[in-house]
Amino acid sequence: MTKMEALGRQILVEFYDCNSGLINDVAYIESSMLAATEASQATIISHDFHEFSPHGVSGVVVIAESHVSIHTWPEYDYAAVDIFTCGDTIDPWIIQEELKEALESNNSSSVEMKRGLFNVDNGQRLHHKPQKPAEVVLHDE
Amino acid sequence: MTKMEALGRQILVEFYDCNSGLINDVAYIESSMLAATEASQATIISHDFHEFSPHGVSGVVVIAESHVSIHTWPEYDYAAVDIFTCGDTIDPWIIQEELKEALESNNSSSVEMKRGLFNVDNGQRLHHKPQKPAEVVLHDE
Repeated sequence: MTKMEALGRQILVEFYDCNSGLINDVAYIESSMLAATEASQATIISHDFHEFSPHGVSGVVVIAESHVSIHTWPEYDYAAVDIFTCGDTIDPWIIQEELKEALESNNSSSVEMKRGLFNVDNGQRLHHKPQKPAEVVLHDE
Repeated sequence: MTKMEALGRQILVEFYDCNSGLINDVAYIESSMLAATEASQATIISHDFHEFSPHGVSGVVVIAESHVSIHTWPEYDYAAVDIFTCGDTIDPWIIQEELKEALESNNSSSVEMKRGLFNVDNGQRLHHKPQKPAEVVLHDE
């Protein structure tokens, strides 16, 4: 007997009715994304944020467990967030909750997708890393 | 009368049965992601790639039209790719096709999601930017 297991899960979040001033502020978005990611205990590898003219912010936080991305359209009070995680050690919904509060979104919807589906024998598990970057020393291996 | 329009579209691609050597090579993945993105005529803003120990690569290309991300699990011959674009000027499926060939994936599946849905009056359009970074001079405005 086999069953399907997923390597990762991804939450696609539509944040509507956000505070348009906040989601047009690249420094605020960057610090909010980092704080939300840290709240989930994810391991941050790098981050990269950009502001656009006349408005809008895009940014990505690469984490050992995959990534968190954001694109904002202040003119529509809207932000698109993806939270992609692998492994069981972090809860991506913590990031969703933190960002909902930070962006002051009054209307949001989220879809969770499974990524990387494989058949495994019953009683077996997929070997989820959280992947560690090559330069990180693994104390528990 | 109104109709729903989307600010963006996102293709979630599962690339199975990839060449495990290629998807464990961070330089190869980075150059393949950049080449695929360029083939679509997207405007590259920045890119950031990492390799993991004992294996795996993660990376993101931020484009003016949103982003392209990849996470690879060479031990499963698997790569998860997201292609998020806004506006009508580029075709995200070009990126999917280019990467399928580059990763030598023999089995893939893709789901396209709409992002940022709004009601607009008939005859009206959502104002899609492609967003331009603040430092880019817009020659046509």
